[in-house]
Amino acid sequence: MNGKLSEFQKKIEENEFSAFLISNVTNVYYFVNFLSHSYAYLIVYPDESPMLLVPELEYEDALNSVKTAEIVKIDRNTEVLDALKVVLEDKQINELGFEEDSMTVKFYFDFTEKCEFLQMKKGSALIEELRMTKIPQEIEKIRKACQIAEIGFSTAINSMDEGKTEIEIAAEVEYAMRKEGSEATPFDTIIASGYRSAYPHGTSSHKKIERGDLIIIDLGAKYEGYCSDMTRTVVFGEPTQKQLDVYRNVLKAHHEAIKGCSIGKKAVEIEEITREILSKEGYNEYFVHSLGHGVGLDVHEAPHIAKNSQDILQENTVFTIEPGVYIPGFGGIRIEDVVLLTKQGAKCLTKADYSIKM
Amino acid sequence: MNGKLSEFQKKIEENEFSAFLISNVTNVYYFVNFLSHSYAYLIVYPDESPMLLVPELEYEDALNSVKTAEIVKIDRNTEVLDALKVVLEDKQINELGFEEDSMTVKFYFDFTEKCEFLQMKKGSALIEELRMTKIPQEIEKIRKACQIAEIGFSTAINSMDEGKTEIEIAAEVEYAMRKEGSEATPFDTIIASGYRSAYPHGTSSHKKIERGDLIIIDLGAKYEGYCSDMTRTVVFGEPTQKQLDVYRNVLKAHHEAIKGCSIGKKAVEIEEITREILSKEGYNEYFVHSLGHGVGLDVHEAPHIAKNSQDILQENTVFTIEPGVYIPGFGGIRIEDVVLLTKQGAKCLTKADYSIKM
Repeated sequence: MNGKLSEFQKKIEENEFSAFLISNVTNVYYFVNFLSHSYAYLIVYPDESPMLLVPELEYEDALNSVKTAEIVKIDRNTEVLDALKVVLEDKQINELGFEEDSMTVKFYFDFTEKCEFLQMKKGSALIEELRMTKIPQEIEKIRKACQIAEIGFSTAINSMDEGKTEIEIAAEVEYAMRKEGSEATPFDTIIASGYRSAYPHGTSSHKKIERGDLIIIDLGAKYEGYCSDMTRTVVFGEPTQKQLDVYRNVLKAHHEAIKGCSIGKKAVEIEEITREILSKEGYNEYFVHSLGHGVGLDVHEAPHIAKNSQDILQENTVFTIEPGVYIPGFGGIRIEDVVLLTKQGAKCLTKADYSIKM
Repeated sequence: MNGKLSEFQKKIEENEFSAFLISNVTNVYYFVNFLSHSYAYLIVYPDESPMLLVPELEYEDALNSVKTAEIVKIDRNTEVLDALKVVLEDKQINELGFEEDSMTVKFYFDFTEKCEFLQMKKGSALIEELRMTKIPQEIEKIRKACQIAEIGFSTAINSMDEGKTEIEIAAEVEYAMRKEGSEATPFDTIIASGYRSAYPHGTSSHKKIERGDLIIIDLGAKYEGYCSDMTRTVVFGEPTQKQLDVYRNVLKAHHEAIKGCSIGKKAVEIEEITREILSKEGYNEYFVHSLGHGVGLDVHEAPHIAKNSQDILQENTVFTIEPGVYIPGFGGIRIEDVVLLTKQGAKCLTKADYSIKM
């Protein structure tokens, strides 16, 4: 049985829930390795096998692939809420944990109206905590997703040319990653050149690459559900002195932040390292987003490496370090890697040159 | 001003909301043509200009591109809920409409705790209704997304070969669509061959194409935010008599359903046409999903063409017709088009051959 599932069962018991309803399909995948393309509900009990409720059209697939849960078919003529009610009543559940950070208000009110016997308990944090520290198999999948992203990056560099559009380059990148086994792009590939590089998350447009452009290349791949996310910034042609100066600062902030990571440190401390370096040169006000975020089945998850984060860095967490400076009228520079936190410090899982020159 | 925004303002007034909080980024895009990559809140009033609250890192972009709303910057040191509270208090809002079908339980409880003076009113249906009927500019964007999907389909056919994997073909399809200007794939491209064609929404795998395989090709593109979605099923090699027989039935169900569409008809009536045709040959129990769904900014939206739908077909709605039959041990066949409902009936926006032979 998946170790994370039994860890979760312990947490349910400690928190005195009689069961936990998992309705987020990514969390269902995390615990029982079944990815629904419509909906699936996993009911986890503290002391017996979980039950996986799936629609009729995914029943065969679930039966064949899930070994760690009892599979219940939701017949096409049965309402989902009725199917859930039957199971929960039958098991005499009263205190039910749920994921408040993904369940919609509509589902919540319809469900609690239908199942008046339930007392609902917020429980997103329990799952977030489990998902934050990665087991070796998860790390291997993220590592593979990172290797695919590196191929995406070198493809971007190789296909960069004056007059090509950002979208054309993004197309080449995604094609290369897909051929390497990427299942999807976890976020829209960003090729943001010239004035558009000043928009921190500007995706890709029909703008053509011009000589002298700063170009932010931010891309990710997905492998067996796990994501990668990396950014490099290059100049097409010869960089100016100012481009080189800003770049050197962002790169320093990036390297020092990674060096500063160790088990037990507060996420905010890492953010401060970066901010201090950028402040010295007057770039503080241009560093407008978080320093980093966890990466796993979601491309944005815990821990949060940001000013207002409460997170403590733990062993086997995987997160990005991505300082960026965006100066209107000049452009933007961001450098991002995925790192794995080990006893020996943070190790980069994304490996590509840090050169502003192409 | 966008006609849909003023229509929405009228609805707000009729429903006696003092304002409406739009937190779904797709709906924000719908009304003010600004696509946030993090979060954005649009507050719409019945009788004055709406306000768009965006994070600092998207402020420049919003200022430059949005002309129909007042832009409010959420400073990086300000909590989102505090920023919303200030605005809503200042405007003396009491009855606030919101989107219950996308707002999370966490946001709802945090928000209502922060803004105790508010009475929250469910309002998703108001927006769903507006989005369901398309204006000419929306239809043109969907039409373009459908044309790109047709190129994706012909690419799938041209790159199909014995021994190639489903994922390799999906990579070719997505690359071709991306080069034609598709911004993203609105759902994972499905190339499902052989036994995998019996999984109605089985995406693409490392399975290799074999002679005699039924192959479901289900793909979509995105153009200026608008989606397309089409499916064809082919046999690699010479089809068997059974494959031809089932195919002929699904195709008949598809054509008759489209012929049956007219303004004012109930969605369930169209579903019945299909079900009756498939029942005659004993395939009813193998038709396990809905007949169709609306297509627009989301690839699944209103109207719902299904057994339990309450929807009435209206002029200028755009939806799929996609009967499918999935027989364990045999495989699956699905044929899907996007149609536009006009006074002259349903017109296919996706145009590709209906041949089971490649």
